[in-house]
Amino acid sequence: MKLLHTADWHIGRTLNGYSLLDEQKNAFKQILQIAKAEKVAGIVIAGDIYDRAVPNPEAVTALDKMLQEINLDNKIPIYAISGNHDSAKRLNYGRAWMEHTNFHLNTLLKEAFTPVETATTQIFLLPFFDPLDARVYYKHQGMDIDKIKEITSIGTAMQLVISDIKKRFNPNKRHLLVSHFAVTPNQESELELTSETTSKVGGLATLTSDQFEDFDYVMLGHIHTRFASPNDTIRYSGSPVKFNIKEARIKNKGKGVDIVTLDDQGIKREFKPLVPKTDLVVLEENWSTLCDPDFYKQQPVNHDWFAITIKDFEPSEHVQTNVRAELQKRYGTIVELDYQINHAEQLHQNINTNINQLSPEETVDQFFDTITGKKLSLPQQKLVETIFNEVERQKK
Amino acid sequence: MKLLHTADWHIGRTLNGYSLLDEQKNAFKQILQIAKAEKVAGIVIAGDIYDRAVPNPEAVTALDKMLQEINLDNKIPIYAISGNHDSAKRLNYGRAWMEHTNFHLNTLLKEAFTPVETATTQIFLLPFFDPLDARVYYKHQGMDIDKIKEITSIGTAMQLVISDIKKRFNPNKRHLLVSHFAVTPNQESELELTSETTSKVGGLATLTSDQFEDFDYVMLGHIHTRFASPNDTIRYSGSPVKFNIKEARIKNKGKGVDIVTLDDQGIKREFKPLVPKTDLVVLEENWSTLCDPDFYKQQPVNHDWFAITIKDFEPSEHVQTNVRAELQKRYGTIVELDYQINHAEQLHQNINTNINQLSPEETVDQFFDTITGKKLSLPQQKLVETIFNEVERQKK
Repeated sequence: MKLLHTADWHIGRTLNGYSLLDEQKNAFKQILQIAKAEKVAGIVIAGDIYDRAVPNPEAVTALDKMLQEINLDNKIPIYAISGNHDSAKRLNYGRAWMEHTNFHLNTLLKEAFTPVETATTQIFLLPFFDPLDARVYYKHQGMDIDKIKEITSIGTAMQLVISDIKKRFNPNKRHLLVSHFAVTPNQESELELTSETTSKVGGLATLTSDQFEDFDYVMLGHIHTRFASPNDTIRYSGSPVKFNIKEARIKNKGKGVDIVTLDDQGIKREFKPLVPKTDLVVLEENWSTLCDPDFYKQQPVNHDWFAITIKDFEPSEHVQTNVRAELQKRYGTIVELDYQINHAEQLHQNINTNINQLSPEETVDQFFDTITGKKLSLPQQKLVETIFNEVERQKK
Repeated sequence: MKLLHTADWHIGRTLNGYSLLDEQKNAFKQILQIAKAEKVAGIVIAGDIYDRAVPNPEAVTALDKMLQEINLDNKIPIYAISGNHDSAKRLNYGRAWMEHTNFHLNTLLKEAFTPVETATTQIFLLPFFDPLDARVYYKHQGMDIDKIKEITSIGTAMQLVISDIKKRFNPNKRHLLVSHFAVTPNQESELELTSETTSKVGGLATLTSDQFEDFDYVMLGHIHTRFASPNDTIRYSGSPVKFNIKEARIKNKGKGVDIVTLDDQGIKREFKPLVPKTDLVVLEENWSTLCDPDFYKQQPVNHDWFAITIKDFEPSEHVQTNVRAELQKRYGTIVELDYQINHAEQLHQNINTNINQLSPEETVDQFFDTITGKKLSLPQQKLVETIFNEVERQKK
C-alpha cells in the first residue's frame, strides 16, 4: 500500500498579517501532482488542516476545493484527522457523506478505535485529544471512577488509548497509525523541535516513541519539520509551507511530503520536496550592507518575502529615516523587521521582543519575570497550563 | 411530486440567552416523522438554516445529525438554500459530497440557474443574495458596466435573475422556486410581517409577488409566519419554533410545515402543525393577579417558558421585592420580564425598552431620536442601511 503523508496545512494561516493562502495553494497543487504521479492509494493528512477553530470563509472555500480535487475529481482516498488547531466538532460536519467516497476524517477520540480496513493494512486515525477528552470518553465506556482520576496527563491517556487500539489489531495485516502529537525519542534528544506555540498546552510534550512501537508505521502531524521525527518508522512529514522565521532559519529546511510504501518487502519511504512559489528569505546584516546594491541585487528582490534583522542598529542615527520604507524600496515585501540594537543602546532592546513568537505560557512567564524578577514555580506553571488548556477547549 | 416545505430553522438561536436547541430538536423530530408518514419525495429547507454566520459547535453538530437522519438514514432528498443569516461560503463546505445522495444545497447566486431536474419538475434553488452579489455575478457574466450600475436594489437584481432562470424553463415540466426573501402581495397589504431583525438590510422588503408569477409554486423562507404568504402559490412555511415574544403573541400562532403536491391534477397544499415541547406563554397582568394562586395555578407552571409583562407596575411599592425571584418561584422559567409602569411613574418607562427586539436600524433610529428629538432623514436612513449591510457582508 502506497500512501502520501502530509500534515499541518494550517489553511488560513497568516505570517505577521500576510496571507499564506496563495503559497498553500501552490504547495497543494504540487502535492496533488505527486500523488497522481506516484499513483498512491491515499493521501494522509495528519491534523491541523485549518489554522484555527473558526477559519475565515476564504480558508473554508479553499480547503473544500482542495479536498474535492483530491477525492472527487481524482478519486484518491483521504485519511485525515483533526489537530489541536482544528475544531473537532466543526471539522466533523459532513463527514458522513464524505465516507461514501473514501474520504475518512476522524475528529473525535471515540472514532479512533475502528480502523479503516484495506486488503493489507489497518489504518487507525487518532485525532488530537487532551486528557479531559480521554476522561470523558472512558467515563462513557463505564470505566471505574478511580481509574479515570488517574488520567492526569496525555502520557497516561495515550497508554490506555493505544492499549485499546491494539485490541483491534488483525495479526494478518499491517498496522498504521495517523496521529497528531509531539513525540520525542526515548532518549533525551538534541533535536530542536519547531512545534506550535500551543505545543505545551495539555502536556503535549510528554509522549515518547516507545509508546508507539507496536505499529508498523506512524504518520504524525504537529511538529512542522520532518527532522524532528523520532526514528525511521515514527515520522513527521512537516508542514508543506514555511510558517515563520524560525522555520526559515533552519539550515536543512526542505519542505515536502513522504511517499510511504508498506508491502511484503517491508517499508519504504521517499521524500518528495515541494518548491515554494514565494520563498521566505531571512537576512541578518547591518544597515550599510542592507543598503548596498552589490548585496541586495543578489537577493530575490521583489519576488520572495524577506524577514530582515538589522545588526548593530543605532536608533539615534536613524531618527530621520523611515527604515521599513527604505528597505521596502530595495527588497519588496518585508514580512518581519527586527533590530539588534548596538550595545551602547541595548537598554531598549526588549521592546523588540515579538510576542507573536512566544507561546501563551511563555508570555505569562516572561511577564511574571518582568514584574517580580522571579520565574513561575512548578505549581504556578501547571495552573497557567490548565487555564490555557481550558481556553483552547472553549474555542472548540 | 410531493414535498415538505420548511424554512428558518435558525439552529443555534437563543431567546434572551436561553438556548432553543432542545425545542429545535423536538420540532425536527416531528418534521422527520411527517416526511416519513407522507412519503415525500424531498424536504425543502428555504434558508436561515443556522441562526448566524458562525454558529457555535453544538449547533454545527446538531444540524449535521439532523441532515444525516433525513438524507442518509432515511434516504430522503433535501433541497436547501442559505438565507441571510447563514454564511454562504461556510455552509457551502462539503456540498459536492452531499450531492451524491440527493442533498442539494445552493448557497451562491451562480448556482441558482441550474435546476435540480426530477421527472416532472424543475426545482430552482435560489439562495439569499444582495444587490452587490448580483453585480459581481453579472460582471463575471460579462454584462455591460452601464447595465450593472443599474442594479441598485434587490428589485432590479431579482428581475434579471428571474428572467435568466426562465430561460432554463422546460415547458414540459412544472417550475418550482425555493428562495429566501421578503415578498409582499402586489397591493398594499395589511399583513403584519413578523420578519427578522435584519429584514430591511439590503432593501429586502421591496419584492412583490408579481415578480414570481411564472413559477407554478414558490417556497419561501425569511418571514417566520405562514400567514405572511402573499397568495396561494407563493408561500412561507414559517419557522418550526417560536423565536420571540412577538411571535408568541400572534393570535393564530400555529407553527408547522406544508406538504405540497404538484401533479397533473394541479397543486395541493396541506398544513401539518408541530407541537412545542416547551411552549412560550405570554402573560400581561398586574402584580396581584400574577401572585394569585387561583391565576398562576391555571398556567403550565414549571413546564413552559414565560414572558411576563407586569401591568400598572409601581416601582416605589416594590423597592424591597426581588420581582423576578418572586415570579420564578411561581412560574419557573421566565425568559422575559417587562414592566408597564403606572402612569404616575411613567417618566421612567423608557428604560424598559428591550433592545434585543429592535432591528439594528431601529436601534440607531431610536438613539438618534433620543439625542436629537428628530427622526433620521431618508439619506441618513440609507446610510445606516448601507453600513449594516456592509457589517453583515463582512461576517460572511
